[in-house]
Amino acid sequence: MSLIVQKFGGSSVADAESIKRVAKRIVETRKAGNDVVVAVSAMGDTTDDLVDLANQVTLLPAPRELDMLLTAGERISMALLAMAIKSMGHDARSFTGSQAGMLTDAQHGAARIVDVTPGRVRDALDAGAIAIVAGFQGFNRGTGDITTLGRGGSDTTAVALAAALRADVCEIYTDVDGIFTADPRIVPRARWVPRITSEEMLELAAAGAKVLHIRAVEYARRHGVTLHVRSSFTNKPGTVVYNPAGPGLDQNGVPVEESVITGVATDLSEAKITVVGIRDEPGKAAELFTAVARTGANIDMIVQNVSAAATGLTDISFTLPKQSAEGVLASLAAEQPSLGFASLQHDDQIGKLALVGAGMRTNAGVSARLFRALSDAGINIEMISTSEIRISVVTRADTITAATLAVHAAFGLDADEEAVVHAGTGR
Amino acid sequence: MSLIVQKFGGSSVADAESIKRVAKRIVETRKAGNDVVVAVSAMGDTTDDLVDLANQVTLLPAPRELDMLLTAGERISMALLAMAIKSMGHDARSFTGSQAGMLTDAQHGAARIVDVTPGRVRDALDAGAIAIVAGFQGFNRGTGDITTLGRGGSDTTAVALAAALRADVCEIYTDVDGIFTADPRIVPRARWVPRITSEEMLELAAAGAKVLHIRAVEYARRHGVTLHVRSSFTNKPGTVVYNPAGPGLDQNGVPVEESVITGVATDLSEAKITVVGIRDEPGKAAELFTAVARTGANIDMIVQNVSAAATGLTDISFTLPKQSAEGVLASLAAEQPSLGFASLQHDDQIGKLALVGAGMRTNAGVSARLFRALSDAGINIEMISTSEIRISVVTRADTITAATLAVHAAFGLDADEEAVVHAGTGR
Repeated sequence: MSLIVQKFGGSSVADAESIKRVAKRIVETRKAGNDVVVAVSAMGDTTDDLVDLANQVTLLPAPRELDMLLTAGERISMALLAMAIKSMGHDARSFTGSQAGMLTDAQHGAARIVDVTPGRVRDALDAGAIAIVAGFQGFNRGTGDITTLGRGGSDTTAVALAAALRADVCEIYTDVDGIFTADPRIVPRARWVPRITSEEMLELAAAGAKVLHIRAVEYARRHGVTLHVRSSFTNKPGTVVYNPAGPGLDQNGVPVEESVITGVATDLSEAKITVVGIRDEPGKAAELFTAVARTGANIDMIVQNVSAAATGLTDISFTLPKQSAEGVLASLAAEQPSLGFASLQHDDQIGKLALVGAGMRTNAGVSARLFRALSDAGINIEMISTSEIRISVVTRADTITAATLAVHAAFGLDADEEAVVHAGTGR
Repeated sequence: MSLIVQKFGGSSVADAESIKRVAKRIVETRKAGNDVVVAVSAMGDTTDDLVDLANQVTLLPAPRELDMLLTAGERISMALLAMAIKSMGHDARSFTGSQAGMLTDAQHGAARIVDVTPGRVRDALDAGAIAIVAGFQGFNRGTGDITTLGRGGSDTTAVALAAALRADVCEIYTDVDGIFTADPRIVPRARWVPRITSEEMLELAAAGAKVLHIRAVEYARRHGVTLHVRSSFTNKPGTVVYNPAGPGLDQNGVPVEESVITGVATDLSEAKITVVGIRDEPGKAAELFTAVARTGANIDMIVQNVSAAATGLTDISFTLPKQSAEGVLASLAAEQPSLGFASLQHDDQIGKLALVGAGMRTNAGVSARLFRALSDAGINIEMISTSEIRISVVTRADTITAATLAVHAAFGLDADEEAVVHAGTGR
């Protein structure tokens, strides 16, 4: 008997009919002889509606109370899902984050998991029941207060439960058919990826692929959880995200044939800030990014120009989420006297394209082919950044679709037919 | 410094604006130098909406899961209320029934309070905060599961907290200006009652007065909690429900002048069942009502006719909530062979009128005056039942308004002017 954790996002449980459909799928998994634990998000737009309600009461809701409010969302969906399963003749019990032992720190709105003690979930399984756990929520032991995990929280709940319960697999149900070589909304001939390593998935998620939240992938990688991304609207096989036993090996330690390129990810959500004319001396970059870090902004790519020998000055550019740009600009402007730069430039019309694949650095031809494809398409590259298994480039935002199509084709990723795209998003 | 418990029903917190208004009222009480604990119901129709949602998923929701679902309602209202208070510069913390120590038995949907351990509420007060507690909900220690208290639950939460915290008063905010000598919607000249004993209030509530739930009044009486019924829409003084130090004494042990009649209550929610031709012998009634009790129905009035000596047969009539009638009829029909009655009659067109007042039994003229007033108004009495401080009669449903007006006038209760009626209902 296998133990399977299944996660269903908000769009999968948007109304009573969807909940009944999801219940049926869970019951089928149970009937196939598996123990089943489910992590579920709030129904459809519930969380957004609750945030709206809070903002009608006060523009600055107290974080503890906002978490108390938002956790009502999963409470509703999990109870409905449990009663739907029970009405089909199978035992089911719903558990809040607290009841399921999702222990977190006290950081309301963005709590980190510190321990998972799913005793009641295990008891429910031992009694033959299906356990339904509220996604996104946790509990801080010190304060006794309810917390939420922030964005990507439900995926993380599922993965954390899978790790703590030593589940055989963690199935993430979503509104797409799995992982593709590019976003099918941009590249209609994007190809389905049946298997991918968690490291590659991490690079894709970091590069803007929205299917799995980066935090959940990190957790899965660190705890050796196998993920299975599937559509809750179809019966397609989806994508398995596995943890290879070592570099170039599959999870059983068998050498894998390197399929150099996994896919192309794009991201239009970032802005670029350039610090112009800063002194190129040891410690200056550290000082700069300390000022940035104080704002809480997450920096993505960083590029430093070669300094002009005559002046000893250089320019440093970095990308970050658009909504963080204003705060960072204000913080840097305030530090201008001590940092001693000439000026700041802000550009929110950039697009990022990332090519991801195993063993990319050992294959020198990949970068050349990438730059050639972009150049042939008449697209200018503004920033470049590379890792072991990824090459990212920044271009103008309005060229990103053309760039993605060109690169996807250049690496022979195009499928024979167009992929089917489903509507909706999960949390 | 006084400790005041305030309860706000669903109609008082129906939307963001109402929540802000209630928050302001709570803050005023705090500013006046009191410690404040608040019990709050779910917003407006939230509970009904959640029940509808459950019924869309399954017609027979699992009771444990239904409680999990419904408790999302107060979670939303209490968090919003706490953040509204905090935005006004006063500290506030919301607590679920479980966090507030409302320990109950495991009877989902109608749990009874077994203990109240409000340690966290006390800590919040000690820290200078206003404590906001979810009404209606509790927690069973044995199963670790969330429960709900059933109808009247939020009133009961408030009273139980007031008792456990030894509060000076428990203020029940509602949509009427207090207790009146009759329902102002039926008797426009109903008179405001400034003070009433908990015993009289109990009789009024049992007789159908909707302002306070009978269960909360019982709890207040048993634990010596003083209630104060007030409107959340006006600043009128409301009605104090007190516990006299003894019969005929006020709460300070001072003899009270008996104001014989407190008021008239009416109830159209009951039906009458008559068991025709049952043997008038010891144990038969017990057998009959054991069969009734098995259905879980709450019986109100019971009247047994004098048996006809010739046959040794009698008729037994009783009233009960309309929605319980079908189940009781089925149960009795199934037991007909052993109970040995001739037939069953079901009448759902009855109305009940109750006259309530202290020392009623010691004043023989009261019944005579009641029956005379009804007879003068041409109204036929079908059943009579009396207690220490109440006389109830059953009449045809369509005569209940005329009956109430006649009795109210006959006992000199009419006010000089008409009362103002507000819309809405609480839970």
